Amino acid sequence: MKRTDSLKQTAQKQGKPTNTIIFNQTNLTYFAGFPAATALYIPEDGDCTLYVSTVNYEQAKAEVKGATVEPIKRGENLMEKIAKLTPKKLGVDTLPIESWRSLAKAVGGEEKLEPINSLVRALRSVKDTEEIKLIREACRIAAVGMQTAKEIMWLGTKEKDAAAEIEYAMRKAGSDGVAFETIVASGPTSAYPHGSNLERTIRDGDFVVVDIGATYKFYRSDTTRTFLASKATYHQAAIYDAVKLAHQKAFETIKPKVAAAEVDGSARRVIEQAGFSEFLVHNLGHGVGLEVHEAPILSRDSKDILAAGNVVTDEPGIYVPGLGGVRIEDTVLVTKTGAEILTVGPCMP
Amino acid sequence: MKRTDSLKQTAQKQGKPTNTIIFNQTNLTYFAGFPAATALYIPEDGDCTLYVSTVNYEQAKAEVKGATVEPIKRGENLMEKIAKLTPKKLGVDTLPIESWRSLAKAVGGEEKLEPINSLVRALRSVKDTEEIKLIREACRIAAVGMQTAKEIMWLGTKEKDAAAEIEYAMRKAGSDGVAFETIVASGPTSAYPHGSNLERTIRDGDFVVVDIGATYKFYRSDTTRTFLASKATYHQAAIYDAVKLAHQKAFETIKPKVAAAEVDGSARRVIEQAGFSEFLVHNLGHGVGLEVHEAPILSRDSKDILAAGNVVTDEPGIYVPGLGGVRIEDTVLVTKTGAEILTVGPCMP
Repeated sequence: MKRTDSLKQTAQKQGKPTNTIIFNQTNLTYFAGFPAATALYIPEDGDCTLYVSTVNYEQAKAEVKGATVEPIKRGENLMEKIAKLTPKKLGVDTLPIESWRSLAKAVGGEEKLEPINSLVRALRSVKDTEEIKLIREACRIAAVGMQTAKEIMWLGTKEKDAAAEIEYAMRKAGSDGVAFETIVASGPTSAYPHGSNLERTIRDGDFVVVDIGATYKFYRSDTTRTFLASKATYHQAAIYDAVKLAHQKAFETIKPKVAAAEVDGSARRVIEQAGFSEFLVHNLGHGVGLEVHEAPILSRDSKDILAAGNVVTDEPGIYVPGLGGVRIEDTVLVTKTGAEILTVGPCMP
Repeated sequence: MKRTDSLKQTAQKQGKPTNTIIFNQTNLTYFAGFPAATALYIPEDGDCTLYVSTVNYEQAKAEVKGATVEPIKRGENLMEKIAKLTPKKLGVDTLPIESWRSLAKAVGGEEKLEPINSLVRALRSVKDTEEIKLIREACRIAAVGMQTAKEIMWLGTKEKDAAAEIEYAMRKAGSDGVAFETIVASGPTSAYPHGSNLERTIRDGDFVVVDIGATYKFYRSDTTRTFLASKATYHQAAIYDAVKLAHQKAFETIKPKVAAAEVDGSARRVIEQAGFSEFLVHNLGHGVGLEVHEAPILSRDSKDILAAGNVVTDEPGIYVPGLGGVRIEDTVLVTKTGAEILTVGPCMP
């Protein structure tokens, strides 16, 4: 388990505990490849132990490599089991307050625990070769979905029906399921960045924002295209062009050692100069991987510095209440020398 | 907001804080109908305040009724805003430890906070008329999906393709998306209760477990049927019949004031008597609503007592490693006098 070794090395460098217990489902997927586990103990030395409830025990035994799989039997208290693992301080990825208190009680006090989720988030933000391969496949599948969107995006199509066709196309192309709730938002609803699929049919003059993602072996993709259901008005064309230019400028800025805030700024300045600054109501982007929103964050206030292996979205948008919105989004890999769009396909902005 | 009134009344009865702050996305949906909010403040007296980040502010203003919508501006610290709301003790639904510590710091100490998630979970476990209507619709949609499953469940069908067809049928029938990851598990994989959709094709002699759910206006359903891809062997028939009888016995036991543990027991005894006790590796069921797993829990160790308005699954299963598994599951409403299966449809066990 290379990833658990990296965790221990980083923990040691930062003076954090080198015995760790992982509870979060996504982190369990990252370290053990098995989201349905209950907890993973990563000791300073020796083998990892994966704790699994009886319902998932047989599957875990068959599928998990690189950790001892131990069932949690009826009546057993996991927190008390964990307390017996080590007398040393224990790093904990994350827990809700109630469970944190149970664990603290079991180990004999909060001072024996230390939250280390920020460390795990930082590790997960730099993808390895295997992860990039899987994200690339999720992006390829989403491109098939977007092509379907383009083909059915005619007047009279119902938002909900469009979502059904797009998801079906992604499934048939190999998706394990959507990476997040599919967004098909037309007309005034497109002015809401997270406006959802309604019974509304697409009408003349609508912007239609289509924001979709596929999942492939737990890894996700995130793409947005905005369609226009008629000839653009001057105002609409100005909005679209500003978003497209902002998206391009941001992409050109992405490379290792650049501040994430600077990437956000490069897109934001384009939109400001076009006179639409009040309508860019969100950050430029976010990391994508096992989760659709993860580190790094591409925002004005971000402290993150980009590194090769980051996978981030580049998604500027302009949202005019009442009129509608435009967003263009790609999932982008930070390479050693610059950046590569992973969500390439027949339907490009 | 009737639901916030119920929360305050219950909190008062139980001696919990009557000023509450809600952070959990599902709880935000329950109380404010808007999952994309950041927090909801429910004061002892007066109007509720919903805090929303700028990305979702316009949508919240348009859609939320019964609460003042307040944007979280750039640079504003939400925890510090919350700290100014009341000098009294504050009930908090749930927070991860890091955020809990930030809030505790802002309000001047942990002793000014109290976790109240168990209270919210108990409230949410008793559904009101509107909720039952929506769950009923989610169940109706899933029945369409299951009928599709039945129609395509022939030899040579690939698990993944079956999942695609089922999800498409549910979308076309009005689903807002899956309630959870669709499960189509054939042959040996069906012995894993959460075995997933693989490239495997259905073969002669396979059990095929199909576990699906639809979502309708945030509410979910949960149904499982097990198909057999040929004539049953004597052993397979014995397994199926035991599960079917256990499912029926449990259903007959469900009514208000019955202990959830007793419902689990009624099914478990059938499976024990049939000689398969070691192969029932999970609880009988769980509540369904805004989440696919919520209160009450139908297990041997559950302390829950059923009440009219609970919506629960009845899902016994027998899983024989190497051979396969059978699960039969319905979503069931606890009525004033007994129980009603909501996941009725053309495809019944």
